[in-house]
Amino acid sequence: MNTKKPLILIVNDDGINSKGINFIVELLKNRGKIIVVAPQKEQSAKSNSLTINEDIRIKQVFKSKNLSKYFCTGTPTDCVKIAINKIVKRLPNLCISGINHGSNSSINVYYSGTVAAALEASINGIPSLAFSLLDYSSNPNFNEAKEYILNIINKILQTNISDFNYKYKNYIQSKLCLNINIPNVKKDKIKGVRVCRQARSKWIENYISTDNKESFRLTGKLNNLDKNDKNDKNDLSLLEENFITVVPINPDRTFYEMLKQINYLNE
Amino acid sequence: MNTKKPLILIVNDDGINSKGINFIVELLKNRGKIIVVAPQKEQSAKSNSLTINEDIRIKQVFKSKNLSKYFCTGTPTDCVKIAINKIVKRLPNLCISGINHGSNSSINVYYSGTVAAALEASINGIPSLAFSLLDYSSNPNFNEAKEYILNIINKILQTNISDFNYKYKNYIQSKLCLNINIPNVKKDKIKGVRVCRQARSKWIENYISTDNKESFRLTGKLNNLDKNDKNDKNDLSLLEENFITVVPINPDRTFYEMLKQINYLNE
Repeated sequence: MNTKKPLILIVNDDGINSKGINFIVELLKNRGKIIVVAPQKEQSAKSNSLTINEDIRIKQVFKSKNLSKYFCTGTPTDCVKIAINKIVKRLPNLCISGINHGSNSSINVYYSGTVAAALEASINGIPSLAFSLLDYSSNPNFNEAKEYILNIINKILQTNISDFNYKYKNYIQSKLCLNINIPNVKKDKIKGVRVCRQARSKWIENYISTDNKESFRLTGKLNNLDKNDKNDKNDLSLLEENFITVVPINPDRTFYEMLKQINYLNE
Repeated sequence: MNTKKPLILIVNDDGINSKGINFIVELLKNRGKIIVVAPQKEQSAKSNSLTINEDIRIKQVFKSKNLSKYFCTGTPTDCVKIAINKIVKRLPNLCISGINHGSNSSINVYYSGTVAAALEASINGIPSLAFSLLDYSSNPNFNEAKEYILNIINKILQTNISDFNYKYKNYIQSKLCLNINIPNVKKDKIKGVRVCRQARSKWIENYISTDNKESFRLTGKLNNLDKNDKNDKNDLSLLEENFITVVPINPDRTFYEMLKQINYLNE
């Protein structure tokens, strides 16, 4: 048995000083060797974007025996790439992204910097967990789901990581990447943890005109288009029932079921 | 038969003055009513990112009977959202994103603003085509593949769009979204068009230190990890053989094959 402490990379999109990332650091600081690489400033809704036409800067801001912290001027995905290439000395055993302040359920997964950072770690060979709490207040309480979060992390760390080095059929080589959302309720209201699929949903945008007819601020409301089907559970419906949801993320974007349907484009 | 001219939304990530978008506008200007909504400045590698903490501004810069052009200060995905919400009077029949200057094959699909804009249109009910030419020069030649590009667009416009209003099993509601890459060769070297899957590949990053040990510029090389298998074609290998590649993009990010494998996380 390998008694070496696991190396855990912690990233986020809310920035290095956010409450969510510091909660995770505190939670895991005796569990392994921790390296934090997080954006200097908030980088929400940055998806998988990269900084390509300007420099990015990294700076160590804290160092102790089992914890190092760096800020990075780039996006969440930049944080993961530069951590792997310039900071860590061995491949981390796990990457945790978050805890995000706000939901990344259903189609929010397209825009989320938190989930994007986890995906980037997973395609670089690191099992990765993106955590998000459905609390948009200025002082969210991450503590209610503490035992559930620790249970998930422990189960993933205790599993032989090579189990997830799947190369399933045509799929892209990747380690496990999980999108985990936590309802914003007291501990005794949380019903449990459920592995499920992404819900069908749609943002109904509302662009607020801010000064004239040319400038707008994006606001909106997420519309759940899915059915609450007992035999085919989705993340939005389960979160409404106060379950913690776990959606595995596919690194392959090919829509295989459409390949034959569009064969008429071949020439 | 509907004789109304199709309404075509044209977007990109290279910016409203790029050669690629103007090539598409010229190509289609007698084919329908064209609305261009493109970033004011280059927005490469922005993925599905959104502008959420600042205003975005749109401004009409050209108007004739069948062509309107707007710039938008936001990302490619912002362009699509604001076009649908604030500019068009009916849902476009087609969205074209590009032509991008450079490849969006294989895992570039994660980072691409061009493909992200097409995905955004498709989840809003508009069939969408992302085009990219594998030419990184300052003056790319989009003309060599002209007939192929027109053929694809005509085939999609002639197909009853409701054919693609699939609601396949659990999949997210969406219209067709195609990621199309074009090899950078003369017309007579192009071998044809092939519908295929995304290749397995990996970026090997090389961070160049620019001033000291804290500032870096991202560079890298894409490594094709896939096999050139006749019965299981992928985009990278087909592009190397000088085919135009068409990969349908899955709007559902759930990794269904993993659901059962991670059931032990349920509690």
